[in-house]
Amino acid sequence: MSVKFNGKYLEGFLREEEFAQLWPQVQSAHDQLMNRTGAGNDYLGWVDLPVNYDKQEFSRIKQAAERIMQDTDILVVIGIGGSYLGARAVIEAVKSIQYNSICKNTPQIFYAGNTISPNALNDLLAICEGKRVSVNVISKSGTTTEPAIAFRVFKKYLEQKCGVEEARRRIYATTDASKGTLKELADAEGYETFVVPDDVGGRYSVLTAVGLLPIACSGIDIDALMAGAAAAREKLSDCDKDNDCYRYAAARNLLYRRGKSIETLVSYEPNFTMMNEWFKQLFGESEGKDGKGLMPTSVICSTDLHSMGQFLQDGARIMFETVVDICRPVKDFVVEADAANRDGLNFLAGLGLAEVNRKAMQGTILAHRDGGVPEIVLEMDSLEAADLGYLIYFFERACAISGYLLGVNPFNQPGVESYKKNMFALLGKPGYESEKAALEAKLS
Amino acid sequence: MSVKFNGKYLEGFLREEEFAQLWPQVQSAHDQLMNRTGAGNDYLGWVDLPVNYDKQEFSRIKQAAERIMQDTDILVVIGIGGSYLGARAVIEAVKSIQYNSICKNTPQIFYAGNTISPNALNDLLAICEGKRVSVNVISKSGTTTEPAIAFRVFKKYLEQKCGVEEARRRIYATTDASKGTLKELADAEGYETFVVPDDVGGRYSVLTAVGLLPIACSGIDIDALMAGAAAAREKLSDCDKDNDCYRYAAARNLLYRRGKSIETLVSYEPNFTMMNEWFKQLFGESEGKDGKGLMPTSVICSTDLHSMGQFLQDGARIMFETVVDICRPVKDFVVEADAANRDGLNFLAGLGLAEVNRKAMQGTILAHRDGGVPEIVLEMDSLEAADLGYLIYFFERACAISGYLLGVNPFNQPGVESYKKNMFALLGKPGYESEKAALEAKLS
Repeated sequence: MSVKFNGKYLEGFLREEEFAQLWPQVQSAHDQLMNRTGAGNDYLGWVDLPVNYDKQEFSRIKQAAERIMQDTDILVVIGIGGSYLGARAVIEAVKSIQYNSICKNTPQIFYAGNTISPNALNDLLAICEGKRVSVNVISKSGTTTEPAIAFRVFKKYLEQKCGVEEARRRIYATTDASKGTLKELADAEGYETFVVPDDVGGRYSVLTAVGLLPIACSGIDIDALMAGAAAAREKLSDCDKDNDCYRYAAARNLLYRRGKSIETLVSYEPNFTMMNEWFKQLFGESEGKDGKGLMPTSVICSTDLHSMGQFLQDGARIMFETVVDICRPVKDFVVEADAANRDGLNFLAGLGLAEVNRKAMQGTILAHRDGGVPEIVLEMDSLEAADLGYLIYFFERACAISGYLLGVNPFNQPGVESYKKNMFALLGKPGYESEKAALEAKLS
Repeated sequence: MSVKFNGKYLEGFLREEEFAQLWPQVQSAHDQLMNRTGAGNDYLGWVDLPVNYDKQEFSRIKQAAERIMQDTDILVVIGIGGSYLGARAVIEAVKSIQYNSICKNTPQIFYAGNTISPNALNDLLAICEGKRVSVNVISKSGTTTEPAIAFRVFKKYLEQKCGVEEARRRIYATTDASKGTLKELADAEGYETFVVPDDVGGRYSVLTAVGLLPIACSGIDIDALMAGAAAAREKLSDCDKDNDCYRYAAARNLLYRRGKSIETLVSYEPNFTMMNEWFKQLFGESEGKDGKGLMPTSVICSTDLHSMGQFLQDGARIMFETVVDICRPVKDFVVEADAANRDGLNFLAGLGLAEVNRKAMQGTILAHRDGGVPEIVLEMDSLEAADLGYLIYFFERACAISGYLLGVNPFNQPGVESYKKNMFALLGKPGYESEKAALEAKLS
């Protein structure tokens, strides 16, 4: 189990000496992290989480998942940002982006409370019609607008469909351990609750109950997921020069300092689509502050070689690519020979698509590199739970080191409040009245 | 029916005089387009397509769609890039991103041949098991690797499941009018065929049979879609200063010249997700060449305000946003009062979510603008077929004008070939042998 940093395709873009020259700063970032002296050091619970987690709660998560698998057709996961992206990313990476169309002995999983769109809510209510529904509501506070609205709706929906008592059994709340609106409600109603730890921020929370309960409900082995993360923690905790995670953090920082503005995360596996989104939150929210940061973007290839491929090959040279090379598919598919060979594909006969896909990846890496795009390659074995757990920890740690290298607090997100304040004022929320008139004047 | 350019939130970023100073270039771009004197003028079929299309074929498309709706549980659309993105974008925008979970009297629609992943193919074959499947294979040539592989598989699948004769009835080929691998095969087998016109490039092809057949199969009114596009053509064909499409093209070009590198397309409607992807191909492939071009990216809000929101609010100031403001939802959802009001949401009671979502949008526009992000707003009525047809034509035309303003050929995509050449060589495709050793040396 590993994620290997392959810097071969950075030749011509970065010199090896640059790594050496940056290394004292990497060491300093490492020290800030390990000595808990850096900005945001209240949020370092993720560092030792893979070994230092609540085993009793972990066991309750598995029991709850078993129950949900038995009595539920549709699990509605209510959460926004870090409170749904990690779970969804893992479920689709390990199982399939078509999980809801292929799941058999596990519930379908739909996500609510991550948008205010009435269309999304109406559609989901239609989908739930006639099905046995359970809800996992995930919110540290319980007051975030999007999930709070969705939960108000689904709580009432369940109470009307199956009665107050049964609804209470079908609602699982992942929230603060002791305080807040959702915790109070959960205690009053008697929901089973799980904990969003105080020292793990939303975008780092996938290996807490926030991610683990929905993931377990999809039938994924959460022990393997944690074991993979634990292996990464073991492997990546020393600041030596062959720490692949730190090499990656250094490379992306060096490319930023050389003027690259964008990191494009690339995968050749559609099931990785939501992992791309999880990555974008992790790095975008951690680095994008004080006017700084690489803008994270993503593509799925070869799909997007037929949309963004032209830009990546030959457009403005403002990005580098980080290619996640997943060596082994769930199951291969061998191209068969065809007697007529009208499509001219017989040169592929006998090859597995995994191999063809791999050649597409290699060919593209060389083409883009020759087109002026620095290429970082991260090599991993598969998207099985353990390998994915390793990758998650790899990225989390790389992100922390990257933030300190950039000179920002990688664990806060002050900018996320700005839109909320304006929205509340425009909606006339109590306490925000004074801003309303000024904002409306700006809009009119 | 309209798409309005609202430039109010560009104040402080662009001066009105800049528009006036750029306008002679806009006029020149317009003249290149209308006089067919610009680069890529072999590919201007889309300009008059909304009125000048093959009515007989259009009628055949509707008949084929009726037949498919009757005899099909799952329609597999095989195509890559422009040969699937437009159809999928329209279906999900008008119907729902959850189309496959809510469709009732129309077939589920899955997309194949846009990836080489064996996982995607294996999953789709599992999904098709026991269902009545039809296939729409879309390829101008029939030799593009990804769709050609998928079609080889699904042709055999159908022939084995329901016999050669029935398979022939269930395969619909959208391809060249007279030549090429797929056309020859279709004629030999007797598939019903539809035409990919010679003068309409892939990314501009959504309003040809390429997009229209799958769209019609989802039950969308393709007459309304075309009528919307025709209305846009009527409205946007003169180069006067209140042409909203040209104002938009001018604004994005001015922002580029001022140093912005990225255009982030923003919508507050999850059903718009694939329209974002369609937009990214349209603009990225048209502008991203010769080391130039705005890099297109996208977010769905408020979802992504909890992932990319921090970066957009306060990260590197390298982007501007183009917000697609969709005024009316399919159906609203009114927030109800709750006696206990534990979640504190009663200030929203009686409001429709469309209104709440709108305030989120307005609040975010102001917050991001105040954070240093130029905001373009494009206002449209709804995502009904006619309005979407209008928007599609609006973007197509804005893209052509943008390309000429940038000084590139907006209708070619030479960079897309680079990865294919390398891939073919690495795979040992006949005719590419000479490159193989050199590429393998670069990889080892």
